[in-house]
Amino acid sequence: MNHTWLLPEYIEDILPPYAQQVETLRRRLLDLFASWGYELVCPPLIEYLDSLLTGKAQDLDLKTFKVVDPLSGRLLGLRADITPQVARIDAHLLNRQGPTRLCYAGAVLHTRPAALTHSRELLQVGAELFGHAGVEADREVLDLLLAALQETGLGEVRVSLGHVGIFQALAAASGVAESERQALFQTLQAKDLPALEQLCRGLTPAIAEALLRLPELYGDVGVLATARRVLPDLPDIARALADLSELAKADAGIDILVDLADLRGYGYHNGAMFAAYAGGQAQAIALGGRYDGAGAQFGRARPATGFSLDLRRVVGSQSVPAPQRGILAPNTTDAGLKRQIDALRAAGERVVVEFPGQEAHRAESGCDRMLVFEAGEWQIRSLV
Amino acid sequence: MNHTWLLPEYIEDILPPYAQQVETLRRRLLDLFASWGYELVCPPLIEYLDSLLTGKAQDLDLKTFKVVDPLSGRLLGLRADITPQVARIDAHLLNRQGPTRLCYAGAVLHTRPAALTHSRELLQVGAELFGHAGVEADREVLDLLLAALQETGLGEVRVSLGHVGIFQALAAASGVAESERQALFQTLQAKDLPALEQLCRGLTPAIAEALLRLPELYGDVGVLATARRVLPDLPDIARALADLSELAKADAGIDILVDLADLRGYGYHNGAMFAAYAGGQAQAIALGGRYDGAGAQFGRARPATGFSLDLRRVVGSQSVPAPQRGILAPNTTDAGLKRQIDALRAAGERVVVEFPGQEAHRAESGCDRMLVFEAGEWQIRSLV
Repeated sequence: MNHTWLLPEYIEDILPPYAQQVETLRRRLLDLFASWGYELVCPPLIEYLDSLLTGKAQDLDLKTFKVVDPLSGRLLGLRADITPQVARIDAHLLNRQGPTRLCYAGAVLHTRPAALTHSRELLQVGAELFGHAGVEADREVLDLLLAALQETGLGEVRVSLGHVGIFQALAAASGVAESERQALFQTLQAKDLPALEQLCRGLTPAIAEALLRLPELYGDVGVLATARRVLPDLPDIARALADLSELAKADAGIDILVDLADLRGYGYHNGAMFAAYAGGQAQAIALGGRYDGAGAQFGRARPATGFSLDLRRVVGSQSVPAPQRGILAPNTTDAGLKRQIDALRAAGERVVVEFPGQEAHRAESGCDRMLVFEAGEWQIRSLV
Repeated sequence: MNHTWLLPEYIEDILPPYAQQVETLRRRLLDLFASWGYELVCPPLIEYLDSLLTGKAQDLDLKTFKVVDPLSGRLLGLRADITPQVARIDAHLLNRQGPTRLCYAGAVLHTRPAALTHSRELLQVGAELFGHAGVEADREVLDLLLAALQETGLGEVRVSLGHVGIFQALAAASGVAESERQALFQTLQAKDLPALEQLCRGLTPAIAEALLRLPELYGDVGVLATARRVLPDLPDIARALADLSELAKADAGIDILVDLADLRGYGYHNGAMFAAYAGGQAQAIALGGRYDGAGAQFGRARPATGFSLDLRRVVGSQSVPAPQRGILAPNTTDAGLKRQIDALRAAGERVVVEFPGQEAHRAESGCDRMLVFEAGEWQIRSLV
């Protein structure tokens, strides 16, 4: 038996009418980004592995498919994330001194799905802002994320704010070694409280108590006031909480929550972070945040913040699109008919030619109207 | 020294403003295809190698990057061509009985560049028509190719018509073994006349003479009349020449030539073929033609014809796009300014916010106007 039509696990085609739905949203988001000044870039699917996994992006290693380049003999990676590529373009190619706004839409591949409901091929669409360290840049990116979420038309959307700086300040104050710091980070990321308690045992009581409080610091903006009370009075924590207060002022009719133990996203993030959720799903549909210095490996460390989302997942959460309609036209060489077909198509109509002998399959065309020659001219008649 | 910003050979970023130029043309072509009834599909970047290289697509093998799937242990291929994937979708997934029109736009990767001026990553955009064997289908696809070429705005465009059926009829009449047939095909493809003469020596004189005449049967439509005179009177040749006469009637202000030795394209083609050239370049910018039966490996052999082009190459042949302009806006929380910015963006303007302390880098924004507060309201003033 022939199974060549089978696709690998967690790899899918996007068929009509869903592919058009993806395309429509892709255009809306790129047009939105362009209207905010974000310039489109298109990095390649494949690069030297070293370039894709530089610096803080090394946790992408396990997600990245590798192949040997027949031209150079070097290892290539199929990109698992576009953000580090855009940081490379900002740092090395554009070489601007001021704020640089870039956006992109492209496929990325993962060796394993991030969750059982995810695909291994994502259609990553995102926007990145380089060159400005102030909270104004985070605020613009958050506002743009909120505007993008509104374009998706998804219901029950909420955005969660976090800040890696709080964990980093606590870890620095604790004086733990890098390996222990990593373990603390992963435990908090997984919200694994028993393991967290275990790891906190050797720490100074104030730090241990603060780390154990982080997973409880979750909810509406009021959480920030609680955090100011219960977390140690460290300058980096005060700054992080002030930034989050500023960001929480964003208002686009979308619920904004604060989650101080939310350390989602890739390891390259190092400041304010955003995650967007929709339709009661546990997995975020958009992720973003600050990742200053990601361009250092490419020759220039620049402030950076941005977000991205997977169009496949967003469209999978949208309602099923209506099937396409159109006008059926006979296959003739009549010049008048050809002119009329051209005019209808130019006006945005879908005009499908019916070939000789194919009348029996008319319904498959999805057309609801037909061009017929009546009373000396071509007229559009209803087919239903 | 750090070279992580280096890209592999024949792999490139597309930077501003070229990426937007690619995006604009991508949209125009997909909209054109949609207006002719071609439905968008989005097959995956990666599939089981068996599926990508089925049947007549096996000459893609050398072009295809291979990786092992960590989930199945099976060999995966990074697609080097989208057409076989679309044939799989028509044959197995959509399962329609009548004509099925599909289109796509996506990246493909080649292990080696097809020519020294080509990239190893192509942005393949194409349209495929399944389920109709008559020349009407080839004619529609050729007309659509001509319309697509007009959208590109390229100068000095010409389209060359060929037909694999002529070579196939001569090879069948010669009674040569498959290996010799392959050698003849490759020699003709390369237009290597001395090698062709060598291979023709053992053949019956009428077939040998016809094969040696093929490379001369090149020029305007008059070539078809010559071909009828000088080629053997075989039914398949008569049918091929009649189809080409029908196709040569297409008229869109683009030069149409006939080249009966043009066997370009992948080995899966088996009928009328098209190649488009622009700006005096020797390499085709679009290729297409009939490839009946490509879906057989996926369970259903269907008539098929279509074409595709590489957006990177097309845009590389276009004139340099103008840089983006826009309106600079101060970073304030003024509600009136925010409303005005929203309205300008919704109207299609590019509005870029200037962050505090970034005034020195104003020129990098590309903005030619600025929002200023004068006489009690926000007004747009020229920056140049």
